[in-house]
Parts: sequence; structure tokens; C-alpha cells
Amino acid sequence: MLKEAIYHRPKNNFAYAYDKNTLHIVLQTKKDDVESVSLIFGDPYDWENEKWQTQTIEMTLSGSTALHDYWFISVKPEFRRMRYAFQCSDKVETIFYTEGGIFPTKPSEISNYFCFPYLNSADVFMVPSWVKDTVWYQIFPERFANGDSNLDPDGTLEWGSTDPSPTNFFGGDFQGVIDHLDHLVELGIGGIYFTPIFKAYSNHKYDTIDYMEIDPQFGDKETFRSLVQECHKRGIRVMLDAVFNHSGYYFPPFQDVLKNGEESIYKDWFHIWDYPVITEPRPNFDTFAFVGSMPKLNTENPEVKEYLLNVARYWIEEFDIDGWRLDVANEVDHAFWREFRHVVKTAKKDAYILGEIWHDSMPWLQGDQFDAVMNYPFTNGAIEYFAKDNLSAESFASSITNVLHMYPKHVNEVAFNLLDSHDTPRILTLANGNKDRVKLLYLFQLSFIGSPCIYYGDEIGMAGGQDPGCRACMEWDEKNQDRELFTFVKTLIDLRKTEPIFGNHADFRLIEANHEQNYIIYEKYNSERKLIFLLNNSTNSVQVDLSNSSSKPFVEWKLEEKEIRKKSVDLLTTVHVGPLSFRIFESSEML
Amino acid sequence: MLKEAIYHRPKNNFAYAYDKNTLHIVLQTKKDDVESVSLIFGDPYDWENEKWQTQTIEMTLSGSTALHDYWFISVKPEFRRMRYAFQCSDKVETIFYTEGGIFPTKPSEISNYFCFPYLNSADVFMVPSWVKDTVWYQIFPERFANGDSNLDPDGTLEWGSTDPSPTNFFGGDFQGVIDHLDHLVELGIGGIYFTPIFKAYSNHKYDTIDYMEIDPQFGDKETFRSLVQECHKRGIRVMLDAVFNHSGYYFPPFQDVLKNGEESIYKDWFHIWDYPVITEPRPNFDTFAFVGSMPKLNTENPEVKEYLLNVARYWIEEFDIDGWRLDVANEVDHAFWREFRHVVKTAKKDAYILGEIWHDSMPWLQGDQFDAVMNYPFTNGAIEYFAKDNLSAESFASSITNVLHMYPKHVNEVAFNLLDSHDTPRILTLANGNKDRVKLLYLFQLSFIGSPCIYYGDEIGMAGGQDPGCRACMEWDEKNQDRELFTFVKTLIDLRKTEPIFGNHADFRLIEANHEQNYIIYEKYNSERKLIFLLNNSTNSVQVDLSNSSSKPFVEWKLEEKEIRKKSVDLLTTVHVGPLSFRIFESSEML
Repeated sequence: MLKEAIYHRPKNNFAYAYDKNTLHIVLQTKKDDVESVSLIFGDPYDWENEKWQTQTIEMTLSGSTALHDYWFISVKPEFRRMRYAFQCSDKVETIFYTEGGIFPTKPSEISNYFCFPYLNSADVFMVPSWVKDTVWYQIFPERFANGDSNLDPDGTLEWGSTDPSPTNFFGGDFQGVIDHLDHLVELGIGGIYFTPIFKAYSNHKYDTIDYMEIDPQFGDKETFRSLVQECHKRGIRVMLDAVFNHSGYYFPPFQDVLKNGEESIYKDWFHIWDYPVITEPRPNFDTFAFVGSMPKLNTENPEVKEYLLNVARYWIEEFDIDGWRLDVANEVDHAFWREFRHVVKTAKKDAYILGEIWHDSMPWLQGDQFDAVMNYPFTNGAIEYFAKDNLSAESFASSITNVLHMYPKHVNEVAFNLLDSHDTPRILTLANGNKDRVKLLYLFQLSFIGSPCIYYGDEIGMAGGQDPGCRACMEWDEKNQDRELFTFVKTLIDLRKTEPIFGNHADFRLIEANHEQNYIIYEKYNSERKLIFLLNNSTNSVQVDLSNSSSKPFVEWKLEEKEIRKKSVDLLTTVHVGPLSFRIFESSEML
Repeated sequence: MLKEAIYHRPKNNFAYAYDKNTLHIVLQTKKDDVESVSLIFGDPYDWENEKWQTQTIEMTLSGSTALHDYWFISVKPEFRRMRYAFQCSDKVETIFYTEGGIFPTKPSEISNYFCFPYLNSADVFMVPSWVKDTVWYQIFPERFANGDSNLDPDGTLEWGSTDPSPTNFFGGDFQGVIDHLDHLVELGIGGIYFTPIFKAYSNHKYDTIDYMEIDPQFGDKETFRSLVQECHKRGIRVMLDAVFNHSGYYFPPFQDVLKNGEESIYKDWFHIWDYPVITEPRPNFDTFAFVGSMPKLNTENPEVKEYLLNVARYWIEEFDIDGWRLDVANEVDHAFWREFRHVVKTAKKDAYILGEIWHDSMPWLQGDQFDAVMNYPFTNGAIEYFAKDNLSAESFASSITNVLHMYPKHVNEVAFNLLDSHDTPRILTLANGNKDRVKLLYLFQLSFIGSPCIYYGDEIGMAGGQDPGCRACMEWDEKNQDRELFTFVKTLIDLRKTEPIFGNHADFRLIEANHEQNYIIYEKYNSERKLIFLLNNSTNSVQVDLSNSSSKPFVEWKLEEKEIRKKSVDLLTTVHVGPLSFRIFESSEML
């Protein structure tokens, strides 16, 4: 057995409180190396005749990456505390893996065992429950709909009259969103994520001038208030974008520092290296990237903290927004985010706090900072496999298994699973215009664990390359919309909401990743039902052998125009799946 | 190369801010598997001609455990942010280990790289600087000295007249401590850790009745105030024991709950399962262990929080204490400790917060909770090897290397390194009365990284088994004290304070752990000087071959009565070390 590859460390994703009575325990071993793993555990104070009392329960193989297997178990220790170890067996030997090292026999010294000292309710990571059942829609407000031409900034172009550029304006606004809420309701959307709406210079508004004011091109506070109200009436929640890492160049405190230098009362709002402050050729202050017009805010300064925390509170308390998406969240100090969480959750207990982090985000997902992050590892895997066909089926399976084992389960359940955004090319473009690939992407996204997000216009087949290409005006002429795709997405969203095993109330398990034929099979299941998904990512038809499947009989779920038809099928041995196509079967017989 | 054993995950002990400009990066590989490791890193925004700019620097093998090697590097990224990967080579191949997996060539996609997004000052773990240079002395107040017989509780026994029992009293008090501060000054002590001093029922006072009152058997608040003042005059800091996990049975709120049940205004101060509240046969409320007389406090209840945080503040603000040792710290919620840290550090910026945790404590040592924990993994290794001779030299080396790689370096530097306490047998007893073993223990403890603590009386050769045996009255009759041992310890403490490479201002590196002859060699070094320690843990003399040592010439440090004699020695090839003895050499030539 490869002892050096065995890994576990309490807390984070390896041992965590799933709820106030339940612990989840995960062990990593080398792939295909260990045949069975059991958890040995006991209450640290449960002794009889000087002998510590333990139980042993077998763990489940929950997934495999390219290099590792992961073993999982959920336990409810009676007194909410336990010490534990792992018993790992292969054909040759059994070893006992503990915090104190690896032993050939079960260690008697309790001090060797791993410890989860107490499951205190205060430490259970509470994520807002509604997020689990929400399908998001991302709106870039300048480009969704122009509902009030009186607000158009100077030089506004006719809607969709030309390609988007880094600097042009088309006059999208809140009234436009209100006017088109029916579109979102029809699609089945439960939440809108707006990129920034505060007063700023650019069309993207990431260069904030005033965090307390709506950008006048979008409307005023009253329009925004009614937008939120109209959304809420329709069961749609609203999340805003908080750009707290840096301000814009025209943020008055920064202008004051530019003007007054060391004499400015705002000099400690930023990280200035020396005076006078210059932005060219390279800024002499901390910035976002090396962009002199985006000075990094000093979120350790109590005045800045007070200002930004007040912003966080204001838009919840005054306008009843439901969440904050945090731009460049990983570059702001953890201490600030801890205070931010406290302020936000005090203002609205079930507000959603979503960090923009592109890499492993465990340090921000411990329960004291964010509820979730934008799940780019999910995005990367799905895009590289389904859209670009750049990954083998096994590599995709490995990446997706990794995604599901990086964080606690309840964090995965509210992960913000996007396929594209205003920062990437659109999926249709990533898929080189291949709509079948887009459908596979949507099927995978909308049947996966997490909180999926659709980028405005993707659902009606808009294309567009890297920014600014992906920021084109929404196409509102139905003749130019791909209504078939719209119906397909709408059907999947409906399934997600009405069928617990299709949606976010089931477990996910990869069954097969076939390299040669380039298909994957996965299951979604709960204690009673199971769905089997066959996704063929090749341009050839494939024959999938299900004769070894323990799940029979089958009912096929056919996605037809505006409905699902469920059709019993004979016991299956071989299933045909067309090129870049899929089939879904239900089995009532559990493994 | 064994790819499955390679492990790194940002933050915690693998990647952390050592100070506001410096990152420490650590990689785990299989032992003796990889020949060299380099860090490839760059600023995430430093691109030229669409090519990301990186540097490569070789890492150092910083230690080996039974299964793994650890590689270390300290870097100062210019803009305090970096993405990075590891280049690992053996004789056969070179691989690139990234967050996105392992690659045979250097990955071009920056998104694969590990990320340390920003080194924000607010997130640098600030430990109190004085702790690094403090040698502690643990006092169990009932047993240190009786200075005021007027305070003796009923039935107090004559000092040292009989063995300690779980229930007897000898009348130790604060005046006794004040009277004997010269003893601590002579020894070179810089801090006293007092086990509980608040009003309680037992002799150990872990069953608090009133956290705001001194136990009358120890004195009153004025005596305590002058005790702290007298300590401070002598450069001795004072740390108290906070028993916040549970109260005592006679804590008035608990008595109120026992009496009034569900009607009690204090019912939510505890975790009561049902009413009436019973303590026998098993308590129907959460307890410490299963001890019905120690009800677990509900530290999630705002009233309890306010009460306990007020306690934490009060003894600092009113009496100027310098630290809190937190009893059963691992069973209290993290959320409480975060607030506790804020309160304590606000009251006294450089107060020391020390958690009692016996196992891996990484989740409490992230900078937002404790400064350090009681370093039982250190204790276990040292006791099992030097005192009990239960470990091989290699196993000891492995355990000590593990201790040094579990946490960030600045956390290790303030780790509370105890050899024994009121909860364990005394070291002389653990060493079966062998004073040479005790000397090796002290030499190791006092030349190791961390903040060492001496349990009262050990330094003058007191023996004693598991509680209550280890809680005997301090021996104040010099005729019965082992003054030779006292001088030995005093000399080591003096060395620790005066010689940076002996003390806590140097790095530690294990050079050899010889299984057959049962000796170890380690080095303490800084950029200019180096000490080489040869500790022979066998009862035979050993000949240590130093002919391959790159460190010449040598000066031997001889610890003689009350002084160190430094003596030049010839170039050494073989060094003789007597049974259970040691030698220390200095080399001015660095590796």
C-alpha cells in the first residue's frame, strides 16, 4: 500500500460539520491502491475498564481523480465529538492511519487518533438555503435592454447597431430589465446577478466613483427599488457586484490624494508608496494588477472599512438586495471579509456572499467569510471537455471529481457554477458555434451539484468572443433568437426545479469516463431514486454497454418540445447514443 | 517519482505570510524520492508580449519524517502576490506540480498555478514578540508556597507533611509566590503560568464558582495586583488560566438552573437536554467529558459571551496580566475564540493567547484565534525518547521534524513547549529517576524552537506520578533540593537568553538520528554561526563520526558550574560522547 499518498487533516474539506449533528469525514489514498477503508471512531471520554470504546464503519469510495481515490463517510457522534482513525486494507495488508502516523495494528493510545473535538453549532457553516434551488441569470446592465432612452449617456449608439467596444454605450438600464422580467420568468430564473450598477466612468462600471449612488445611465434609486420589488414579486432574487478591492480613478478620495498628496485626509485610504502620487509610467501605489486607474483600497484602515461596510449594509437595508458578489475577492484581506460577513448576515440572515476567486478557495470557505465562490474549476473542466474537446473523458472526470472533493458538501451545493461571463468568450463561441456542444454543457451544468448561472443571451444562442465581444446587446427580436435552444434550457431548468434527483437534492457520482469512445456516464441519486446520464462528447455514435449495471429496470426521460416524456424501456444491455448527444434513464432500483 | 505523495495547499503551514513582505512556501514529497525541488513563481499580472514572466529558485530540504520530505523556501514577491508551481526532479524525470495537477512540461496556462493572491498586512499572523524570548514557569498555586497562613482553608495540612491527594489543601497562596520570586529570577524565568486562581471549590480550581473573584485561599485582589506588579518589576510576565469551556458545579447560574429548571433565567447559559436537570446517573446536559459537575457553557449565547469576554478584559485592564491560557480550548467554538482574540488584543496588544489543545491545532492557529497551543506533540516525542527510551532515534527525529512542519514558523517560535504539567507525571518520574535523562530533556527543550515551560519544582529535582502525585508541595529546603540540577537548568536558560544560536533566534535542523547507537545530532544556526548538538540517549558511550561534517573548525562549549567555557578543539573526525550525555560544538564555517 502506498502509505505516503494517504492524506487527511481535520477541518476544511477533510472533516467538517455538515449540520449540527453530522460530521463528514474524507480520506485521500492513491488511486486504485486501497481496497477498503473503515473509520474507527469513539467519544474521547467513553472509557470502560480503562479501555477506550470505539466503533468501526466502512467508508464509501466517493470518487477518483487521476492520482487519488477519495473515501467518504457521514457520521453522527452521539455527544458531537470524536477521535478517529482510518483502517485501510488491500490484498496484502491492513494499516491504521492516525494523526500520530501509520501503525500495523490498531493503536491503543487515544492521543494518536485524529480529533474533531466538538461540533459546536456556532461553527457549522450555514449557507443560505434558497441558493441551492436557484438558477441565476447574469446581467451586464449596459447591454441587456434600454427601457428609458431619457437616461442614455451622450453618444449612446442604437441598440445592437454595432459591435461592442471597450468604450461604447448602448443605453441599457433598469427599466429595460423590468420590461423583460417575463423573459426570465419564462426561463425559470430564480436570481439575477448584476455586474456593477454604481456610479462609474466606464460601460462596465468596475471603476467605481460612488458606491452609494446608482449610475445615472441605469436609473435612480427609485427605479432600482422597484426593480428589486418586481423581481421579488416574481420569486427572483437580486445580487449586486461589490468592487471593494480597488476604487475607480474618479473616486473622490483618490482624486483628493492625487491633488493634495501627503496632505490629503484620504492618503491612508490607499497604499501609497511615496509622494507625489503618479500613475505613469508605473503607479507608485498598490493597484489592481498594474492599472494606475484602479488604486487598491486600504481595507485595513478603519475609515475605509466603515465606508465599505456601510455600503454593504445600505443596499441590503434600503433596497432589500439578496446577495453580494465580491469582485477580486481574493486580494482583499481575510480580516475585512470576516467583518463583512458579520455586517451582511446581520442585515439579512440569508443573504448570499459570493467571492470571485478563480483558484482553490478553501481559505475563504471556512464559514467565516464567503458562502461560495465562482466555480471556475467547474467552468474550466466543462468548457475544456464539452465546448473545446480539449480534455479526455478521464481527465474531465478527474477534474470534476476534484471539484466535488475540494470543499465541504454544503459549500458545493451553493457553488456558483458558471459556464461563461462578461470576462470570457460566450459558450457558443467557445464551442466553435456547435449548438449540440452547448446543449451538452447546459445539460451537465443544470444536472450538476451547485447553483448554476446563465449569462444573458446565451440561452437564445448569442455568440461573442473575449471581452468586449461577449458584451453585445441582448437580442430581443424573437426571429433572431434561437427559440429551440431557449426551450431546451427552459426544460432543463424546469426539471431541475421539479425533480429532486435531477436537481440539487441528490448526490452525484461518476460511473464511467470512456476515453476511446469519448463519453461519460454519471448518476444522480438519493435514497429512493436514481437517474443515469449518458453524455456522448464525440462526433460519432457510441454503443454504451450497460449490461453490468446494477440499476434496472429503466425508464427513459425524453426531453421533448416543452415537456419531458417518460417512457419505460426494456432491460437494457447496450444503449445507442448519437453524436454529441445524450440519454437519461431512471432506475428505481438502488445500488 | 511518487506523484501521489506530493502535497501542497496554500495557506495554513504550506504557504503563509511570515511577515508583511515574506511568504514561506513548503512542499511535501515522499521521503528520499525527489532529488531537487524548485519554486517557479511570478506576479500574476506581470506579462510581456503575452507571456507570463516567472522566476525559478531552488528550495531547501528542511526535514524528513518517516514517510515524507519537506522542502522550504522564503520569498519576497515584489508586489506581495504570486502564482507558483513546483518543479521536482529525480534521476529519471522532471515534473511540474501545480494546483491544476502534474505536468511533464512547464504549464503555460497561469490558471493552473497555485495562488497566493495578496499578502495583506491585516492577515499576517502577529504573535507577541516577547514570547519568543520567554522561559515560562508553571505554578499550581495551592502547592507553590504558603506565605499567609491567615488565608489557609479549614483543614489545611502542614506544608509538605503528606502526599498530595485529590482533595487535600496545603495553603499555597500569592504571598508565597511573592516571597519566592527571587527563586524565579535566579533561574532566569520570564513568565509565570498560573493554573486557575479564581474562586472555586477544589484545590485545583478548575471548577470555577466566580470568574470575577480571586479564590480567598490565595489572597485578595490587592495581593494579586501586587503579585503582578512585583513580577513585572522583575521582568516576569503573568499568564492566567481561563476555564471557559465549562463552569464548576457551584457556579451560581448553574445552581440556579438546578433549582429553577426551565424557569431559570440562566437556562440558556448551558446546553440542557430536558428538565428537570439531573447530574446522576448521567447528566442530561452537555458537560466536560461526562462530568456532571462541569457543565459545558453555551458560548454561543450572547449573555454568556458578554460575561466571559468581560472576564477576559477585566483581568487584563484591572490587573495588567499578560496572557490567557485557555483550558479545553478545542471544545469551545471557533466563533467565540475569534471574538475573544479581538477583546484580548484590544485590551493589550501583545497579550499571549495560548490554547490547551493536545492534537493538531492548525484550525486554531490561523491568526484569528490563538497565538500558540500547548505543544504536546513536542512533549510526547521528547518524553518518549529521552525520558522513557520508548522511541528509536529515527522515530524521534521524525516526530520532531513533524512538529516543526505542522505550523508556520512564527507559530512554532511561540509554541508552548512543556515537558510535563499538573496533568502528567513529573519528568524525573517519567525518566524513572534518572537525572541524566532529565538533563538531556532540559538541554533539548531549552535549545529547541519555541517558548519552553518548566513545571514548578522540576528544576530542583522533585519527583511525582500522575495527578495527584505531580502536585506535591514545592520543596523549599535547599538541603532537599537538587542544586546541581538547578544550576544546570539555570545555565541553559542563561545560554538561551544570551546566545541567539542556542536560543530562539536560529533555525533548527536535524543532522543525524542514529538508530543503532541511539544518538541524535542537530544544529542550530543563523547566517553567521552554528552550534552542533550531539545527544547520546543510550547508556553506552558512543563514537560519533564527524569526518564528513562540512563545519570546521570547532569550539567546544562546556557547561560548567555556573558558566560556559568555550574551548578550541582540533579538527574533529570522531567525537566521544558518554552515556546519556551530550556535547556541543560551535563552528563558524557555514554549510
